[in-house]
Amino acid sequence: MPLAHNRTGPLLKKLRTLMSNRKYVPESIQAYIVPSGDAHQSEYIAPCDCRRAFISGFNGSAGTAVITTDKAALWTDGRYFLQAEKQLDENWILMKDGQPNTPTQADWLAKELPVGGKVGVDPCLISAEAWSPLKKNLLSSGHSIIAVPINLIDLVWEDQPPPPLNPLLTLTEKYTGISWQDKIQKIREKMQTKKCGALVISALDEIAYLFNLRGSDIEYNPVFFAYAVVTLDNIFLFIDDQKLDAEVKHHLQLNGTDSAIQVTSYDKVGEVIKNLVDQVEGKFWISPKCSVALTQCVEKTRLFAQTSPVAVMKAVKNDTEIQGMRSAHIKDAVTLCELFSWLEKQIPTGSVTEISAADKLEEIKVEQEDFISLSFATISSTGPNAAIIHYKPTEESDTVLSTDEIYLCDSGGQYKDGTTDVTRTIHFGSPSNHEKECYTRVLKGHIALASIIFPNETKGHMLDTLARTSLWEVGLDYAHGTGHGVGAFLNVHEGPCGISPRVSAAEIPLEAGMILSDEPGYYEDGKFGVRIENLVLVVKAETKISWLNEYHTQCREVVGPELKRQGKKEAYEWLMRETQSIG
Amino acid sequence: MPLAHNRTGPLLKKLRTLMSNRKYVPESIQAYIVPSGDAHQSEYIAPCDCRRAFISGFNGSAGTAVITTDKAALWTDGRYFLQAEKQLDENWILMKDGQPNTPTQADWLAKELPVGGKVGVDPCLISAEAWSPLKKNLLSSGHSIIAVPINLIDLVWEDQPPPPLNPLLTLTEKYTGISWQDKIQKIREKMQTKKCGALVISALDEIAYLFNLRGSDIEYNPVFFAYAVVTLDNIFLFIDDQKLDAEVKHHLQLNGTDSAIQVTSYDKVGEVIKNLVDQVEGKFWISPKCSVALTQCVEKTRLFAQTSPVAVMKAVKNDTEIQGMRSAHIKDAVTLCELFSWLEKQIPTGSVTEISAADKLEEIKVEQEDFISLSFATISSTGPNAAIIHYKPTEESDTVLSTDEIYLCDSGGQYKDGTTDVTRTIHFGSPSNHEKECYTRVLKGHIALASIIFPNETKGHMLDTLARTSLWEVGLDYAHGTGHGVGAFLNVHEGPCGISPRVSAAEIPLEAGMILSDEPGYYEDGKFGVRIENLVLVVKAETKISWLNEYHTQCREVVGPELKRQGKKEAYEWLMRETQSIG
Repeated sequence: MPLAHNRTGPLLKKLRTLMSNRKYVPESIQAYIVPSGDAHQSEYIAPCDCRRAFISGFNGSAGTAVITTDKAALWTDGRYFLQAEKQLDENWILMKDGQPNTPTQADWLAKELPVGGKVGVDPCLISAEAWSPLKKNLLSSGHSIIAVPINLIDLVWEDQPPPPLNPLLTLTEKYTGISWQDKIQKIREKMQTKKCGALVISALDEIAYLFNLRGSDIEYNPVFFAYAVVTLDNIFLFIDDQKLDAEVKHHLQLNGTDSAIQVTSYDKVGEVIKNLVDQVEGKFWISPKCSVALTQCVEKTRLFAQTSPVAVMKAVKNDTEIQGMRSAHIKDAVTLCELFSWLEKQIPTGSVTEISAADKLEEIKVEQEDFISLSFATISSTGPNAAIIHYKPTEESDTVLSTDEIYLCDSGGQYKDGTTDVTRTIHFGSPSNHEKECYTRVLKGHIALASIIFPNETKGHMLDTLARTSLWEVGLDYAHGTGHGVGAFLNVHEGPCGISPRVSAAEIPLEAGMILSDEPGYYEDGKFGVRIENLVLVVKAETKISWLNEYHTQCREVVGPELKRQGKKEAYEWLMRETQSIG
Repeated sequence: MPLAHNRTGPLLKKLRTLMSNRKYVPESIQAYIVPSGDAHQSEYIAPCDCRRAFISGFNGSAGTAVITTDKAALWTDGRYFLQAEKQLDENWILMKDGQPNTPTQADWLAKELPVGGKVGVDPCLISAEAWSPLKKNLLSSGHSIIAVPINLIDLVWEDQPPPPLNPLLTLTEKYTGISWQDKIQKIREKMQTKKCGALVISALDEIAYLFNLRGSDIEYNPVFFAYAVVTLDNIFLFIDDQKLDAEVKHHLQLNGTDSAIQVTSYDKVGEVIKNLVDQVEGKFWISPKCSVALTQCVEKTRLFAQTSPVAVMKAVKNDTEIQGMRSAHIKDAVTLCELFSWLEKQIPTGSVTEISAADKLEEIKVEQEDFISLSFATISSTGPNAAIIHYKPTEESDTVLSTDEIYLCDSGGQYKDGTTDVTRTIHFGSPSNHEKECYTRVLKGHIALASIIFPNETKGHMLDTLARTSLWEVGLDYAHGTGHGVGAFLNVHEGPCGISPRVSAAEIPLEAGMILSDEPGYYEDGKFGVRIENLVLVVKAETKISWLNEYHTQCREVVGPELKRQGKKEAYEWLMRETQSIG
């Protein structure tokens, strides 16, 4: 439902005044970019960081606002087109990312800005990988980008909430399978192979993973605000020390004088990195997803800008984590069976709405062992609402479930042993032939992806099409990726692997131990939506050829030495020739 | 077969002397890069441009040589691993592109160079898109890249052939479907939508296409050496005027005093571009595939670095070209039937070799109407030779065809009406079960790709996997892309569309009128090779949903106005609601 008429007008007016006030900006700017994330480039953010939602009214999880002196535009992707159309007021232009005629931010700015325009952005809120092309594209149209260290939205946001200070939870090896000390050790080995003397970690889920700690600073995401820097000799943890109770201190072994971890104030991270540049030899490993503010603490020639090794390690689940994810999904499946059997009885009475179904599901989930919270706001949607890909029912939109419409439920939980994410689409009456066909084609896509056998080094974007061909056959498609990584009691969306037409969603190849969602869908605007989602685990496939190669290797290893020992040279050569690896 | 022992030793010694001689280099360099292409970034090149083959001995169509003060390394892709292993002498290290442990050129150089190393390259031979990341990566390891305008290979190449000066062929609209004047008009319209005042064209096939001219300066590729610059008012053609006979002059309308085309000397292109920068308003459209030498004639803020509009126009064949391509393939099919029926009789007698089969095929092809030349050296390969992906039989390797082995024949012709490229794999005796299975799985991949229905805006890399899944199922794969664009009586490999796991091979989405190869394969080193290749034309698919949407549009257009005319407002709204586009 639309927000109040012209709600954002007065805010934009204030913001535009600040854009030319030299007290707050290094120089007058003609455009201001408000990214979606926080200083950690989180996808889901704490209330204090919802700056883009505050200024634009659009509160989806992905989107960027750009405000010029006379216009305001918001870019978001296919999952959110309908939601953004509903939420943006008349001051805003919706830019549909991924559609052929949508300009990029740089192209649009090139058209809108006066000659030699300056575009401002908070360097903490933009990643290095987003900054570079933007800078380049603006330059090529005669404009430039300016880092504005004071956040202008914070200045116009009168009732901005304070940053959260929630307590931490320690995880034993029963849940993680490996101590934080051993993780640090593995990370240091990786750093050494890349000749890196320091690793800067700013992604909140990487920090939580690395130290076997969890938090609740961001709703649904069991993370806490912190930065970390690991050198070959030291570990710096930048965190508000109010968060460190006795148990956490014990877990991090902070009590002795020779503590391995130096706890430092959260806002000192830039300063410490700058000091380390002179003290540490080798490169500084900083993911291109880190903020420009942190990246620019290190001179370019010292920078090693590659995917964080913590992100890569975290993506490949160990046996304990895999076991935990399985266990969490079994508990989660129990809750879904409970919900659907309940709905089957209640829906015909007309007493269930989208919100009451979601509430019921949460009630049921809370009863499960080791349940911590939902892993995202349940998408409980019926009929046309299910065509809004990331719909979350509000009081205004809440609709009664009926036996005449399709019900789509995408839900998940954070359990101490794992994170779940499952979507089921159910018609509690008689679906039309068209609805049946769409459902069947989505299911065929889901199965095709779940069943695929692929070679080593395959990246997720090469598999995305498999989930779509059955829909393509009749001219249908869906405007979102097919799969995202899922954390083990961590964020429900995690990188660096993914299955999407967007190549950037698959930074590293798939490998055994990765867990991803498999969630093709089909959405008919104003009518209905279908999505079928399970999580899938990448496992080593036993193919006919791999069986043969393994058998041949075994022949070589078992019979080879014996042939050598008996001096049968020709026979040995015959064996080596006939047992060469194929494929 | 290996080349002479240490053939390249003396050449490398001379080259290394030049690398520190300030008479030839702006400053002393510790490494020299020898790219594969010519000043037009051609894949196939004239003998005078085979610098990388001259210095390294490896004469495949793709590869880059890098020579440091004490090492020499050659990077090439999966098609050429075996060939390069055979051709490189002991001075060279083979770097297998695309394999997980192969360093990039920049990574390798970072390891090999002394502190603050300088890497030289001829700026005419490296594209802007290759230069930028190389520069950045070298910079990040403390090294730098230097443009060396004098080509150092030319200095050590004593018997380098002169550039070719072959006559041109004019093509009428019977073959092209559109005059060069109308092509220029369309290109200028495209330039205006992008606010470009000038377009620099350096790719030889784009120049041949744009002017409806063909040449024979490069074997198998009907192109000629030239550059072109199109502004909104002028057309500059940079070409040796010995190539312009009376017919060509008439075709280009060069005879009047108000000629639309200014013919200028080939080597003046850089100078003219530099002068135009002050005379022309708007941006300079220069493809990122153009050389650094040309790109750097224009300051960055004036540059519009996007895929050439000529390349895009050329990729989408018009009806005349499609008709011509069909006709050429029918003639080509005749020649293959003739060859295979002849082989069936001759092979059992043991009288046919790879070379004699290829020669026979050429003899047959020459008889066809409008045949100009082969479109590439016929890959005529039997048994283990067929596992060498781009094998061309030499006198040393030539093998007798037999009924015991698989024969793979990849051939094509340049006909005045079109270019062909077809691969057939045949066993003239009884293949093994394993060979049959591999062949069948390759065929299934070929059919899967040829049959796929996909949405608008799909890029080729999203389809590549479809040709592989049947092989993946048993643990097999092939180390090359599945499809390349094919010119209409132009280069057998053309961009900017392609079907490959390499995202860069698909610069623009597939659209109706594009012609691509569909050529999955399977290669078992030392045993056999299978490839099945046809060309496929992208056509508009008639899906159930598109049929329904078109029918609904028709209802709206036919019945809608009549309802309005009769003042039946509610019925009109009902019609509009019920005939909304779906999918």
